[in-house]
Amino acid sequence: MSTERRRRRRRRRRDDTLVTTRSLPQIAFGALRNRFAPIAALDEEQLELIHEASLELLEEQGIEVLGSEPLRLFREAGCTVEDGIVRLDRELIMQLISTAPARFELHARNPERSIEVGGDLIHFGLVSGPPNVHDRMRGRRPGNYADYETLIKLGQSFNAISFFGNQAIAPTDLPANTRHLDTTFANLTLSDKVFLATGIGAARAADAVSLCAIARGLPVDALADSPSVLTNINVNSPRKLDDAMAYGLMQMAKLGQATVVTPFTLMGAMTPATLAGALVQQNAEALLGIALTQLVRPGAPVVYGGFTSNVDMRSGAPAFGTPENSLANIAGGQLARRYNLPYRTSACNASNCVDAQAVYETQMALWGAVMGHGNLIYHAAGWLEGGLVASFEKVVVDVEMLQHLHAALQPIVVNREEIGLDAMREVGPGGHFFGAAHTMSRYKTAFYEPMLSDWQNHENWQLAGAEDATQRATAIWQRMVNEFEAPPLDVARREAMQDYVARRKAVLGTAEPELEVFV
Amino acid sequence: MSTERRRRRRRRRRDDTLVTTRSLPQIAFGALRNRFAPIAALDEEQLELIHEASLELLEEQGIEVLGSEPLRLFREAGCTVEDGIVRLDRELIMQLISTAPARFELHARNPERSIEVGGDLIHFGLVSGPPNVHDRMRGRRPGNYADYETLIKLGQSFNAISFFGNQAIAPTDLPANTRHLDTTFANLTLSDKVFLATGIGAARAADAVSLCAIARGLPVDALADSPSVLTNINVNSPRKLDDAMAYGLMQMAKLGQATVVTPFTLMGAMTPATLAGALVQQNAEALLGIALTQLVRPGAPVVYGGFTSNVDMRSGAPAFGTPENSLANIAGGQLARRYNLPYRTSACNASNCVDAQAVYETQMALWGAVMGHGNLIYHAAGWLEGGLVASFEKVVVDVEMLQHLHAALQPIVVNREEIGLDAMREVGPGGHFFGAAHTMSRYKTAFYEPMLSDWQNHENWQLAGAEDATQRATAIWQRMVNEFEAPPLDVARREAMQDYVARRKAVLGTAEPELEVFV
Repeated sequence: MSTERRRRRRRRRRDDTLVTTRSLPQIAFGALRNRFAPIAALDEEQLELIHEASLELLEEQGIEVLGSEPLRLFREAGCTVEDGIVRLDRELIMQLISTAPARFELHARNPERSIEVGGDLIHFGLVSGPPNVHDRMRGRRPGNYADYETLIKLGQSFNAISFFGNQAIAPTDLPANTRHLDTTFANLTLSDKVFLATGIGAARAADAVSLCAIARGLPVDALADSPSVLTNINVNSPRKLDDAMAYGLMQMAKLGQATVVTPFTLMGAMTPATLAGALVQQNAEALLGIALTQLVRPGAPVVYGGFTSNVDMRSGAPAFGTPENSLANIAGGQLARRYNLPYRTSACNASNCVDAQAVYETQMALWGAVMGHGNLIYHAAGWLEGGLVASFEKVVVDVEMLQHLHAALQPIVVNREEIGLDAMREVGPGGHFFGAAHTMSRYKTAFYEPMLSDWQNHENWQLAGAEDATQRATAIWQRMVNEFEAPPLDVARREAMQDYVARRKAVLGTAEPELEVFV
Repeated sequence: MSTERRRRRRRRRRDDTLVTTRSLPQIAFGALRNRFAPIAALDEEQLELIHEASLELLEEQGIEVLGSEPLRLFREAGCTVEDGIVRLDRELIMQLISTAPARFELHARNPERSIEVGGDLIHFGLVSGPPNVHDRMRGRRPGNYADYETLIKLGQSFNAISFFGNQAIAPTDLPANTRHLDTTFANLTLSDKVFLATGIGAARAADAVSLCAIARGLPVDALADSPSVLTNINVNSPRKLDDAMAYGLMQMAKLGQATVVTPFTLMGAMTPATLAGALVQQNAEALLGIALTQLVRPGAPVVYGGFTSNVDMRSGAPAFGTPENSLANIAGGQLARRYNLPYRTSACNASNCVDAQAVYETQMALWGAVMGHGNLIYHAAGWLEGGLVASFEKVVVDVEMLQHLHAALQPIVVNREEIGLDAMREVGPGGHFFGAAHTMSRYKTAFYEPMLSDWQNHENWQLAGAEDATQRATAIWQRMVNEFEAPPLDVARREAMQDYVARRKAVLGTAEPELEVFV
């Protein structure tokens, strides 16, 4: 740290009030191992029925794929291609996906932030995708680049978050054709964590990989054996893989980068109104996308994605955190493990504000995701309104919930020392353990210390302003933003990234980035 | 239904607005089977270490028991009794608890409301115990009998609730020495569900059993083979069983009624500040109480209770819904199953209002309770402020969460019909399923329909008043209270209960009910 920065830091510390000098209780950044056995929503027979029906769907009905290149690859692999519909038999699909790795590492520009994807490991990601943003100070509004930066700062500051989805919000004040360059630049300068590239077409994906290579000080080629970037490819359910998605996927695989294939299967709208039907369709669509990654580059890292929830059958509105969504999160894990693939799922909700509903829906989805052994849990902090809003307060509330789960997943230590029979003898019947040596030596770290929860008694809580958790969350995100310091980054690399962004903007002008030109 | 009542009902229906005529979406009352395998917080070796250490605690340090009768029973069974401390060796404790049944039925006065306790069955109970009550209309205040009646009406109306804890709130406007008679009368007239007796001393317990016998039209003796009432006996941790609790327990067992033995083990205060220590102490204390029920009446129905949570080590305030509480709920189930006993656990929180914290804490505890295979989940609706407040709005929010879990625990149907490959063919790539025959034949019941969640879009939600879930909950409990009709009850039995209450009040006057006089 430079002398100047150290001085600034000290100055800030002196100005702090008593409240803000105490650091916020956070878990440490690092791999979280799921020590509970995964639970089963489907029995073995049901799982095989879903598997079999999805292969039948691929064989008989197939999936529409747009784009000459992906269709060529499928045709050459032995699939039937007719009127843009790709059909392939069960042996072929199983053979194609068999080269996908069960786990892989994603290399952040800061090696300490790299994450391993697969096995029993869980990673929570920040909200991504909403066009709008909300906080209690400024209300609901279309997202802009300043808000985007704020969300990246929050995601960087909270240790519970280990990756960023694609665009925490859409920065609607920036031109749509080049904003992926700005958001990637923000990801790589305000954060040193792993993030998702915009995978709409080949060029956007390639831009993210190029910028990542610069940030890591490596040539793009070198990243093929050391993947840095992930993208999410949505299948346009039912049974349609658009060209923008197909080319984005192919570009990522070509560069050895990681892809998540996530069918957008909202039951009742994009799939039959049954879990069985939705899971069959999700599975067929996911397997086809996964196969495409392996056609481009056998062994390319790829993740089985599930996003099955239901719609409100009265209005058609998407619902999240429903019982069906929770079960789908669990069942999706069973399917991913069936194919020995890492699993992506989500923790969403459909509430209009950061209230009890937002939390119980998120918890339903989150527990399903964790008990179903999701490896990448998307939208785990900040998602609101079915994905139409990223909420700063919700980020804080969600991080608190993620920290709770993190603590609950730590192993319990059981030995004579921890049990403390001697302490029980010392205290005796009817006594208390506050002053016991056994307690005194442990009390500081004995229990999880929450960041947001308020355990004051009613009188003190009233005197302190009677704020609910959502109101209290405002001060926490504000403080995180105020105290934010960007992680170190070599000046030359930063400048090289700025040059890359400027060059690409000059090339693109007002044109859309190239769909199919591969790097 | 009488003609007059039918007429009143019709009249009310005509007066209803459009909104209120649509009945609230509720799950059906009935047994809920936990179809997920229980998860393990402790590995097998750790479980045995806890078991062994708790037996060592009973052998070497023992537990203080107040009351000559319980001490006599323990002495006669072969325990060492010294200065009121009961010590017993591992063979004896295992032998004593071996007569307790693994499952039993609790007979409500309405046979359709009877519940089976044990195995994979889950029952959710209403909040019990708080001295205060809160609702958004009238704020926070000491509980009174009218509030008590309202809570019983709510618990009766919501199908997710299958039993009442002991005193939903303390009706502080009634004399403490006789209020158990009034609350039991309310339980038996406003509800036909199972409830807990006040187990403070023998006479209060006996009063509840006597009133239940009248309500069922049976002599008290007959209830011994057909238990109707449950009570909760707290061990005064660390290691002290008070005489009021001991005599209450003995009276219940003597009459063949069911007891839950729940050590009050708040880590850091009443136990060492470790999960290992708390579980050892909980286990020793629970086993001693369970043994006492079997000394009184071998085969008496009894439940292993766990209430292990932690305190805030900075203030000493009890905390609930913490990661440690969630893990204790899971581990408690492992211990109960170790002894082949039904398991009682809880879903509590320590928030000061019905906010995000109240919900995430409740969900942490609730998921731990369900994944740990709790059979009786106490305080599952309405608990607030660490148990100092029963909240009407929280009842509604919690019931919504219980209904979510209920739906998530229903089996998934997987067959060709449900999968709907034909529907997928009909819809085709990029289409939608809204109008498909497969959807049309299912849409009404395809998905869980929430009672409280609002899935309107932002604009409509704003137009409707932008109420959060807690605000919306007010209208729901008010409607439940307004529409309440007491379940049918034979007039003669009702009068006999009134007579019993009046007689007992006359006998007691201002005196405390008898501690040790057994029926």
